[in-house]
Amino acid sequence: MHDTAALAGRFERVVGPGRVLTAAEDMNGYQQDWRGRYRGKALAVVLPGSTPEVAEVVKLCAELEMAIVPQGGNTGLTGGAVADGDRPVVLLNLSRMNRIREVDVANNSLTAEAGCILANVREAADARQRQFPLLLGSVGSCEIGGLVSTNAGGTGVLRYGNMRELVLGLEVVLPDGRIWDGLRALRKDNSGYDLKQLFIGAEGTLGVVTAAVLKLFPRLSVSATAMMALAGVREAVDLLRFMQEQIGNRIEAFEILSREQIEIVLKHGHGLQSPMALDAPFYVLMEIADSSPQWDAGAELQNLMEAAFERALIADAVLATDIAKTERIWALRHNISESNKRAGFTVSNDTSVPVSRLPAFIPLVTGRIEQQVAGAIVCHAGHIGDGNIHVIAVLPRDVYATPEQCEEAAARVNLIVHEASVELGGSISAEHGIGKMHVERLERFKPVLDLDMMRAVKAAFDPAGRMNPGKILRA
Amino acid sequence: MHDTAALAGRFERVVGPGRVLTAAEDMNGYQQDWRGRYRGKALAVVLPGSTPEVAEVVKLCAELEMAIVPQGGNTGLTGGAVADGDRPVVLLNLSRMNRIREVDVANNSLTAEAGCILANVREAADARQRQFPLLLGSVGSCEIGGLVSTNAGGTGVLRYGNMRELVLGLEVVLPDGRIWDGLRALRKDNSGYDLKQLFIGAEGTLGVVTAAVLKLFPRLSVSATAMMALAGVREAVDLLRFMQEQIGNRIEAFEILSREQIEIVLKHGHGLQSPMALDAPFYVLMEIADSSPQWDAGAELQNLMEAAFERALIADAVLATDIAKTERIWALRHNISESNKRAGFTVSNDTSVPVSRLPAFIPLVTGRIEQQVAGAIVCHAGHIGDGNIHVIAVLPRDVYATPEQCEEAAARVNLIVHEASVELGGSISAEHGIGKMHVERLERFKPVLDLDMMRAVKAAFDPAGRMNPGKILRA
Repeated sequence: MHDTAALAGRFERVVGPGRVLTAAEDMNGYQQDWRGRYRGKALAVVLPGSTPEVAEVVKLCAELEMAIVPQGGNTGLTGGAVADGDRPVVLLNLSRMNRIREVDVANNSLTAEAGCILANVREAADARQRQFPLLLGSVGSCEIGGLVSTNAGGTGVLRYGNMRELVLGLEVVLPDGRIWDGLRALRKDNSGYDLKQLFIGAEGTLGVVTAAVLKLFPRLSVSATAMMALAGVREAVDLLRFMQEQIGNRIEAFEILSREQIEIVLKHGHGLQSPMALDAPFYVLMEIADSSPQWDAGAELQNLMEAAFERALIADAVLATDIAKTERIWALRHNISESNKRAGFTVSNDTSVPVSRLPAFIPLVTGRIEQQVAGAIVCHAGHIGDGNIHVIAVLPRDVYATPEQCEEAAARVNLIVHEASVELGGSISAEHGIGKMHVERLERFKPVLDLDMMRAVKAAFDPAGRMNPGKILRA
Repeated sequence: MHDTAALAGRFERVVGPGRVLTAAEDMNGYQQDWRGRYRGKALAVVLPGSTPEVAEVVKLCAELEMAIVPQGGNTGLTGGAVADGDRPVVLLNLSRMNRIREVDVANNSLTAEAGCILANVREAADARQRQFPLLLGSVGSCEIGGLVSTNAGGTGVLRYGNMRELVLGLEVVLPDGRIWDGLRALRKDNSGYDLKQLFIGAEGTLGVVTAAVLKLFPRLSVSATAMMALAGVREAVDLLRFMQEQIGNRIEAFEILSREQIEIVLKHGHGLQSPMALDAPFYVLMEIADSSPQWDAGAELQNLMEAAFERALIADAVLATDIAKTERIWALRHNISESNKRAGFTVSNDTSVPVSRLPAFIPLVTGRIEQQVAGAIVCHAGHIGDGNIHVIAVLPRDVYATPEQCEEAAARVNLIVHEASVELGGSISAEHGIGKMHVERLERFKPVLDLDMMRAVKAAFDPAGRMNPGKILRA
């Protein structure tokens, strides 16, 4: 049955001619992740156009005893959408399912198919005077199915929650090909187990998410941005709580950058300049925003910063009074990855701890990395309001010259960060998920009982282990 | 083994003398729900004082092949904490586990044991300049374990979400007696399946919730309340969206009352008076509030109502300018149950539909009930921002004189409401859960696949069916 042409023919009868790729050059872009770190081999890439087609493909895979790797925009960072191991695998890419089925303005909800690109969903909401608030770097290419399946985070979590909190309903093709219609658009529903929760963040290991009902919010109409210099991480946490007391949840973003990180961005960021002196160890980029048209956000932020200065929470601050200045502030944040890449070999982490533990966590990991990884420049950037800090070690290329040296140092950095995070009640993966990358790490750091319970869920919904094998849990 | 004294002795060795009740008069208050509608027979009521004691009791029950009914404040409305059927059952009441283990102000979180009463949790947060926003009628007696297990709703859902959105972590004793320590206090954690979601809203059918980490919010410092007269339900939905555009999520409560409901409250509410003329079909009670001390909520609400009046969203309005007037407005809402009870036999429902369907749903159910249940006065009250309307039929006692007549009419009302709700994409239980009351109703209205999936979850975690049998799913 692994006669490729015969196989392709069977899938083509479901999804139509040209929708099944089997030639290496056609499959190439689908078989590896966008950073080129993970590569897997699929028998075919199948491109369904509707939920019934997905269901038929899944049934056919069940009949043929083939595994399925669901894929959206393929923008993940942990190899979750790439085939793993030697098992015959069909790569099911949902990008053709890109229809926004409904915008229900009065219900503040929108129903999108799995293949809808995030930017398009945001635009569709905006066109109806609404906002879909999820925002992350890959906004122009990541897709709803993947965002649901990885419980995506980003910069808006402080105010709006993770993707889990933004989903009202789901449509899922189960491993046996049955279509579960959980496309509810309700804010309150206690009629039995909340089944959609199973599939959110399951990384495609329990079924294929084909559509979602998403929450919408009032569109923002005013905003103001500032950059503030702080004496330490504790001051950043205190500043956040002070700001929340003053303006409730109108804080749209609250990001921290260490001075070392900003210095790298300024050195390697192609002519970027700092809006303020770099004489403090940490900086907060803060945006406040609201739908309320009559709110003078700029004046409010000015007052808030003066009050924070009086309370010794901040040492210095600059308010962006125009778009150019706002962009200059945010450019520091958005040029981190590229600048770090130019500065050396970059090892980036995605951990979280309780916000109250950040003042202990950051010096702890910094000290350990500096001690154990010679020459490493340790930077911190992240969503401090959620406890989600990206600890980044930049390794100078003159010290870390060979791939082996880099790999060895990266492994050491990751272990230090993961251990410190778990020591302080944190997570080894805050927003990127487990995918293929962290399967062993999860086995090491999760309690045995947690793993047992996860395997029980997996066995209940995918007893044959055909859905995205080798992701989250060992195949 | 059902020698009661011997049985009590074995449990007493775990929980201590006096903590196992077997005499009918001692068990009475635990064996029926607070309204006296459901009654079940337990072999013993066991009162553990710690999580290890719960685990030992659960293990002992497993050994003795006894079922367990977990119980908190016993304030539920669907019989979820009362024994069902003839199976030997131990009633496990967690009220002694009432310790607040930790308040982490910098993390905005609080760890409470299952037996903590909601009012005490709210006070503990308040004492630390924080707010725990869940609020419902039984605030003085309902307990955290029950609130988690029923995914409680209430008046704060519009702004803060259901209990599910307020839980960061859980501790659960599994049906085999193992203790799952999921007491994480993280805002972002994508390290595998989010296991706590399984137990939230599971009504004790998958394990015993023994503690929870809850989200805290800044404490509110300003508020204003108003009552507004509206031409219809559509205007109420439009008014809500307009208000959200103007002040974002600073809307603390947005409740609707039909004129018929207010008239009953005025007639039977022991001297209550309406703050405004009753010449409109619907009234909205709205409260806006925020932590922001410098916000003039009263002036803002005055301006908002003027703007709403200009847009013809409201016909008339009254702003509460002092505490007495505020209480006079809220007294209309809080006296519904008692007033209705004096007015006749009351049949109350707890359904939800998408908010956009409320303008269709309310006249639909009203018309059908008036047509099919002679003499019924149909009232509406509820959380319109969440689509959760309590449709209430008050049956005059001169027409509905016997218990049989009342029961028959109640069944007809419930069926009408459930059918209309499901027709419009809604739920048969918005916030009260399924318990024992709606098990058959769930089988009738939930798709077979949903029930199959629920049973798969149940079988994976409680294969022997010993956890709260007969609740949500048929035993």
